[in-house]
Amino acid sequence: MKNYINISDIEDLQEIITEALQLKKENSAAGTGKGKTLGLLFFNPSLRTRLSTEKAAKLLGMEVMIMNADKDGWALEFEDGAVMDSNKAEHIKEAAAVLSQYCDIIGVRAFPGLQDREKDEQDVVINSFLKYAEVPVINLESATGHPLQALTDAITVTELKKIKRPKVVLTWAPHPRALPQSVPNSFVEVMQKMEVDLVITNPEGYDLAPEITGKTPVIHKQEEALKNADFVYVKNWSSYEKYGQILSKDNSWTFNNEKLERTNNAKVMHCLPVRRNVVIADEVLDGPNSIVIQQAGNRTFAAQVVLKKLLEK
Amino acid sequence: MKNYINISDIEDLQEIITEALQLKKENSAAGTGKGKTLGLLFFNPSLRTRLSTEKAAKLLGMEVMIMNADKDGWALEFEDGAVMDSNKAEHIKEAAAVLSQYCDIIGVRAFPGLQDREKDEQDVVINSFLKYAEVPVINLESATGHPLQALTDAITVTELKKIKRPKVVLTWAPHPRALPQSVPNSFVEVMQKMEVDLVITNPEGYDLAPEITGKTPVIHKQEEALKNADFVYVKNWSSYEKYGQILSKDNSWTFNNEKLERTNNAKVMHCLPVRRNVVIADEVLDGPNSIVIQQAGNRTFAAQVVLKKLLEK
Amino acid sequence: MKNYINISDIEDLQEIITEALQLKKENSAAGTGKGKTLGLLFFNPSLRTRLSTEKAAKLLGMEVMIMNADKDGWALEFEDGAVMDSNKAEHIKEAAAVLSQYCDIIGVRAFPGLQDREKDEQDVVINSFLKYAEVPVINLESATGHPLQALTDAITVTELKKIKRPKVVLTWAPHPRALPQSVPNSFVEVMQKMEVDLVITNPEGYDLAPEITGKTPVIHKQEEALKNADFVYVKNWSSYEKYGQILSKDNSWTFNNEKLERTNNAKVMHCLPVRRNVVIADEVLDGPNSIVIQQAGNRTFAAQVVLKKLLEK
Repeated sequence: MKNYINISDIEDLQEIITEALQLKKENSAAGTGKGKTLGLLFFNPSLRTRLSTEKAAKLLGMEVMIMNADKDGWALEFEDGAVMDSNKAEHIKEAAAVLSQYCDIIGVRAFPGLQDREKDEQDVVINSFLKYAEVPVINLESATGHPLQALTDAITVTELKKIKRPKVVLTWAPHPRALPQSVPNSFVEVMQKMEVDLVITNPEGYDLAPEITGKTPVIHKQEEALKNADFVYVKNWSSYEKYGQILSKDNSWTFNNEKLERTNNAKVMHCLPVRRNVVIADEVLDGPNSIVIQQAGNRTFAAQVVLKKLLEK
Repeated sequence: MKNYINISDIEDLQEIITEALQLKKENSAAGTGKGKTLGLLFFNPSLRTRLSTEKAAKLLGMEVMIMNADKDGWALEFEDGAVMDSNKAEHIKEAAAVLSQYCDIIGVRAFPGLQDREKDEQDVVINSFLKYAEVPVINLESATGHPLQALTDAITVTELKKIKRPKVVLTWAPHPRALPQSVPNSFVEVMQKMEVDLVITNPEGYDLAPEITGKTPVIHKQEEALKNADFVYVKNWSSYEKYGQILSKDNSWTFNNEKLERTNNAKVMHCLPVRRNVVIADEVLDGPNSIVIQQAGNRTFAAQVVLKKLLEK
Repeated sequence: MKNYINISDIEDLQEIITEALQLKKENSAAGTGKGKTLGLLFFNPSLRTRLSTEKAAKLLGMEVMIMNADKDGWALEFEDGAVMDSNKAEHIKEAAAVLSQYCDIIGVRAFPGLQDREKDEQDVVINSFLKYAEVPVINLESATGHPLQALTDAITVTELKKIKRPKVVLTWAPHPRALPQSVPNSFVEVMQKMEVDLVITNPEGYDLAPEITGKTPVIHKQEEALKNADFVYVKNWSSYEKYGQILSKDNSWTFNNEKLERTNNAKVMHCLPVRRNVVIADEVLDGPNSIVIQQAGNRTFAAQVVLKKLLEK
């Protein structure tokens, strides 16, 4: 693996999942990262991604240096040829090249603005690091994707599935704020590579980008979609069509026990943080079908296997 | 030890003090924490607590991950059953459970609001972590107690006492801001378990909670209380009775050389940070009786022995 | 070495440069810092200095603890005898002494206010730490100097020079904000100790302090100064004479290919961050003569050799 920007950077998904689950059982790679440094650069806040990636790196014996780009007053210029006479102190060209002097791998998190679809789809921050860094780059959630979360999800489904080809349903749920499509995008991408029956359900106007959805069935009636589901992934996202807008807060889409009963005793997943009683009801999160904590725990092993692959390169 | 939330979590105070002083002499536990991770979560700023706990963990071979919950824009919901449709992004249930996936021990600091006594006494933040975390929790100063500081104080008194049963005086001093009662609370609690003669002195209206004070004499005349003191612990706190209020800034309570002369050449203690010439005069802090720096240094060994006990559990 | 506050703390510049370049080739000192802790205290933001010093310390096997003094709401009092009844929570006397309890070396960064020359020249923050700390102190850029950068520059010139006595030109360049003189001050100081022909060029009104400049020629015509230069160090600084003011944003001083052609195919240096097309043109930064990234990479080895010398003391 050269970088980890998209799910497509994984050459053999099954092999990488197997290796992650092996690392979870036994940290056989504790020396792989000795003398190597991981730099984590956050343009947006992070809890799970930061801690699990830091932990994963340390499990490999790496040193970790963390920078909060948003708080340390370090505004970057991304435009080529800019005359830098205003408030941007450093160009991405220097920033990425200099970080490459101090770090053996660089992780970057940068959320979308959700105002301008075309601009967000260019995913300027992560792609600029990819262009100008001289070391491997990891996507810690970009404007359009969250491949570490998606690999975690693939690991979790593999770990907990009881039948060879489970039915996996991704269902939209309401949320008070406009959220990116990065998590559902990457989840759909990774599930399309797995031996699962994937179905997406969301209200009209909330269909994900057609390039993402591809041939995956999109059903606008949640009840129908949930039938016989073995896994339900609940997640809010803002509209792709009317880009970045909240078209509905319809709480009939909140995932509760009544919905759960329509499934095949499904395991319930969410990337967290989750708004209780808005996205998922207490009764589900506190009940036996929720695997959200175990799923969060697997973040460590997804990060660990990706770091290991990049170090081995 | 299962958690370290209150002084009462210590089973054998003398044994733990002896072990801390032994660790100070020789770090015989350098491998105890190998492969273990300490997560430190700050809802309020910290210097000594953060650095000494980080240092202690590293002396044990642990990895340390630090999160500034107040700055990383990560507002937690603590209410059971809340419909999370406003500004709280994550419920303590998930936060504590997820941190338990990445950390082997979690330390939490959360100050009181000093507006509502009943609410502060519930000590919601630390108690919620205690309830929902699946790993041991350390109190890095909560609304009502600061047991790491108190253990430090017990270690320091033990280390420096010259007679079997010294007289220890806790004296109030003025301060420009309203401060919690957490430090004096825990100091009183730990001293009540030591072989010392403890006396508290403060202006009327500043008596600590009766459940804390118990049978310890409270004297409202500082001069009288200081007589024959072997240790004087100077500290401001806001009123417990008129909860959180500043009733007096009376600088006749400032601890200076004149006060020191009334004691038995007492060692002078303070948890720091200290307002010079308001709480304690320069002449005392810069003189031979001040042991505040040595006391701060002992924070490391208090934290180290607590972490060791939790790891051994 | 006892502390590293000024270039003059280096006893033998050539020897330390040779050792740094040796450490760059082979980290032969990986165990020197085992069990030792470096504390880095930032009163101002930092990217390169923080990361390179953290990396250097870890290359020596040290633990690193980082504090953002400006963000963690921890206002220090520096006045002797102050009655601390307003917003300053802790006196430098305690802060420095306490940090000395937890750290084996302390690094401090504190920029000048650029309002009051006399005050800035007292360099109160770094000198107070020097006075009250009980462990070695490193200057991570103070009001008047940046000796880690200067040592980096000396290492870089030594590494890349092709003739025994190269001509080195320090040239002023425009900048939208008022910047300190710390970088040019230390650069001039270190170059005066090297076997180079040093020339400074800047517009009238921008001469550095006479005590810094000494006998080094100052030429107010950039074109003339650049002739036959083997190294050009481009840097903005605010006026020393009209202290802290921006007297000119004259972009005829911007360093571009036309200027480069006047030199002896000079290597172009800058401490970064650099305002592209204001301080240095894209064509130079993206061209073969720029060594700014390599220079930034050498920060690690300057820091490593300084830390090693302090540890060996």
